[in-house]
Amino acid sequence: MTTPLPDDIARVASRAAGLAVMGFDVDGVLTDGTLYFSSQGDEIKAFSSLDGHGLKMLQRAGVEVVIISGRSSRALELRAQNLGITELHMAVEDKRTVMASLMAKRGLNLSQAGYMGDDVVDLPVLRACGFSATAADAHPEVISRVDFVATRGGGRGAAREVCDLILKAQGKWTALMAEYLAETPVAETQVAETQVAKPQSAGSAKGSP
Amino acid sequence: MTTPLPDDIARVASRAAGLAVMGFDVDGVLTDGTLYFSSQGDEIKAFSSLDGHGLKMLQRAGVEVVIISGRSSRALELRAQNLGITELHMAVEDKRTVMASLMAKRGLNLSQAGYMGDDVVDLPVLRACGFSATAADAHPEVISRVDFVATRGGGRGAAREVCDLILKAQGKWTALMAEYLAETPVAETQVAETQVAKPQSAGSAKGSP
Amino acid sequence: MTTPLPDDIARVASRAAGLAVMGFDVDGVLTDGTLYFSSQGDEIKAFSSLDGHGLKMLQRAGVEVVIISGRSSRALELRAQNLGITELHMAVEDKRTVMASLMAKRGLNLSQAGYMGDDVVDLPVLRACGFSATAADAHPEVISRVDFVATRGGGRGAAREVCDLILKAQGKWTALMAEYLAETPVAETQVAETQVAKPQSAGSAKGSP
Amino acid sequence: MTTPLPDDIARVASRAAGLAVMGFDVDGVLTDGTLYFSSQGDEIKAFSSLDGHGLKMLQRAGVEVVIISGRSSRALELRAQNLGITELHMAVEDKRTVMASLMAKRGLNLSQAGYMGDDVVDLPVLRACGFSATAADAHPEVISRVDFVATRGGGRGAAREVCDLILKAQGKWTALMAEYLAETPVAETQVAETQVAKPQSAGSAKGSP
Repeated sequence: MTTPLPDDIARVASRAAGLAVMGFDVDGVLTDGTLYFSSQGDEIKAFSSLDGHGLKMLQRAGVEVVIISGRSSRALELRAQNLGITELHMAVEDKRTVMASLMAKRGLNLSQAGYMGDDVVDLPVLRACGFSATAADAHPEVISRVDFVATRGGGRGAAREVCDLILKAQGKWTALMAEYLAETPVAETQVAETQVAKPQSAGSAKGSP
Repeated sequence: MTTPLPDDIARVASRAAGLAVMGFDVDGVLTDGTLYFSSQGDEIKAFSSLDGHGLKMLQRAGVEVVIISGRSSRALELRAQNLGITELHMAVEDKRTVMASLMAKRGLNLSQAGYMGDDVVDLPVLRACGFSATAADAHPEVISRVDFVATRGGGRGAAREVCDLILKAQGKWTALMAEYLAETPVAETQVAETQVAKPQSAGSAKGSP
Repeated sequence: MTTPLPDDIARVASRAAGLAVMGFDVDGVLTDGTLYFSSQGDEIKAFSSLDGHGLKMLQRAGVEVVIISGRSSRALELRAQNLGITELHMAVEDKRTVMASLMAKRGLNLSQAGYMGDDVVDLPVLRACGFSATAADAHPEVISRVDFVATRGGGRGAAREVCDLILKAQGKWTALMAEYLAETPVAETQVAETQVAKPQSAGSAKGSP
Repeated sequence: MTTPLPDDIARVASRAAGLAVMGFDVDGVLTDGTLYFSSQGDEIKAFSSLDGHGLKMLQRAGVEVVIISGRSSRALELRAQNLGITELHMAVEDKRTVMASLMAKRGLNLSQAGYMGDDVVDLPVLRACGFSATAADAHPEVISRVDFVATRGGGRGAAREVCDLILKAQGKWTALMAEYLAETPVAETQVAETQVAKPQSAGSAKGSP
C-alpha cells in the first residue's frame, strides 16, 4: 500500500533507516524563509500544515524531533508547543555542537542523527550528521551537498517529504497508511455498502498534480 | 454558454451530480496549508476570494456546504461566518464519523456527500463519501486516491474548481452564467449601443493564462 | 525607447487609447485574491508595489483611476488613500451600474471606461466597458471574454501591465520613460564620465526573467 | 570549493569586483513587492532569511550595505536594525542623488557603488552606478537594462544571489565557504570517525532543485 521507493531514493533511505533523532532548521525549512515584520513590532512566521502532520507522525513513530534555529522567535515557540516539540534550540550560532551534545546526552552519536537545513551556515551540522536533507529552494551550496533534496520548497511540504522518507526507510509507513486505508467498520455498514457500488476508477480523472 | 466538460471530467461529474452536501477541509484546501503564527499569539489564515464566491454559489444552488477541520481556529470561525456556513466542525479527529452522523441527521447517506481534503488523515472520509476531491499540491497519497484533483493549489482556487464542477454536474451552471452574461437592460441602451460597436474578437489578444 | 507593441497587443491598445477612466476590482486583481483573517479579527490585504507605481503613473497621465469592489475592507481604504484614489466604491453588488453612473456624472459613456476584474461577477461590467482586462490567474470564464489578459497574476503586477498598456496606447509611455532615462545632469558630470567608461553590454548577462 | 562562475557571469563579476558600497531597494528587491495592509492600520513587510544572511556576509567582507527606498516603513526600520544596516534612507524621491552624495562623503564615486532595484523609478540610480542588478520578477524595462538579473524573485533570494556574486567577484567567497566546510575539529573526533564511513555519494539522490 506504500508508494514504492525509486532506486535512487532507496540508497538515501538506507541512511535514514537508523535515525533516532531528526533535527530541523526553521527559516527556509519549516518556513519558506520569509520573515514578516509588522510596523507594530510583531514578527510572523508561516508554517505548513503538511509539515506539521509529518512531524507528529515522526514523533509517534519513535523518532525524536528537534528544532535548532539561528534566530529566536516567539512565533516559533508557539508552533513548537503546538507540535509537542520540547527540544527547541533558538539563537544557536554553532548548530553542530548543539546537535552533538544533544546526541551525547542520549548516549548516541551523530551518525544516528539527521538534519535538514537550507543555508551555508547549516553545512557543518549537515555534514556531521548521518543523514542530511534540504528544501528545493535552498541555497545551491547546500543542495549540492546533502543526501536528499525535497521536491517542494521550505514551508511548502519539504519537511513532510523528509518525514515520509524516514518513516518509509524505517518500515513504519505501511502500518501508518493501513490505519487511514482500513476497511469501513461494521457500524457504518450501510454506508459501506453504498461505497461498494463506487467503481475502482478513483483518481482516473485527476488533473495535473 | 458553459464551458463543455471534457470526457474524463464528465465521468467524475456523474459522481458529483447527486451531491446534497459538500464538505471541505481547511488547511491545504481552503488555504494553501500555511499556518501563520505571530509573536503576539495571533494566528492568521489565508483564504481565497475565488473559493469564497464558489462556496456561495454552491449554497445558493441548494448544495449544503460544511467545513470539517482537524484544527481549531478563530480565524476560520470568522471566515465561515463571512460565507454563511453554519456547519463548522473544528478540532475533529475522526472526520468520517462527523460526516456520517451529519448525513444521518438529514436522512441521507454518505454517497450523497462529497469531501475535499489534502492529507492522509482525510483518506477515511474521502473514501467514504460519494465524491472526493483534492488540491493540486495535496499529499501524493491523497492525489492518487480521489475522484478529482484540481489544477490549482489549496487556497488558490482549488475549492472553486470543485464548486464549479458540482454546479456543472448538477446542470446549474448555465443558468448561473446566463445571469452574468445577460444582454444589457433597456435602461442602459445608450451604453449598449456603444458596446454593439465593439468587435466580437474579445479575448483574442489574451496572454498565456 | 519604449518596448514595441506586438501586433496582437496593438489591436487591444486601440481600445485602450480612448479611455478616460479605468476601474479596478480588488480581490484577485489588486491582490492575488487572498483574504487574510487573523484570530483577533484583523483582516489583511496584500497589494503590489509594482501595481502601485502603475496606478500613480496612470493618474498623473490624466486617466482617472477608480476602484469598485464587492467586499468592504479598512485595509483597502488605507491602500486607496495611499495611492490618492478617491473614487473608492466598496460592498458593491452591481458594478456595472456604479460604473455607468460614474461615467454619466462626467458626461462620458461606458465606451470611455475600462475595467479589470477576475471573477464571473465582474462579467457584466467587463462586457459593458470599452476595454476589459484580467489577471493571468483569473477565473477561466473571465479569461476567455476580456480584451487583455495580463501575463502576471493578480497582486503580482497584473494591474501594472494594464497601466503600462494604457499609457503606451495613449502615447504617453515614451515621455514617461524619457524622464527615467535622461542623461545624467551637469552637476553629476564627474560621475557621468565614470559611467561613460561603462560598456554598452548592460543586460547581456541577465538570467531568465 | 567555490562554484565556478560561468563565462557570462564572469564579465558581470568584473563590474562587481571593485564595489565598496552596495545599495538595495526594498519593495520588489528585499521583498517580493507585496505591501500588506491590515484593517487595524498595521503594515507588514516580508523579507527573506536567505537575503539576510547574504547581507550580513557582504558587510563582514567589507562591502558597505545601504538601503534606499521610495517608501517609508517602520517594518523596514526593524529589519534594517536586525541586519546591522545603519545607512537606511526611506521616502527617497531621487535615489541617484542620495547615492551620489553618500559616495561623495566617503570620497568615492558612483562607479564604486552598485544598486539593485526593480522598477522604472530605479533606472536613474541603476544607470549611474558601476554595477546594477535586479530580481527575476522586476519590471521588464529594468530587466533589459541592468548588468545582472537574479534567477530568483524579489524577497525570495534575489538579493542573496547578488551578495554571493559580489563576494565571488571580490575573491572572498572561497574563504567564507572554507569556514563552513572545515574538517571536523578534534573535540568531535569520535563523531568524525563515524562520518568517515559516510560514502562520498552525498547529493547524488537529490530531487529537482
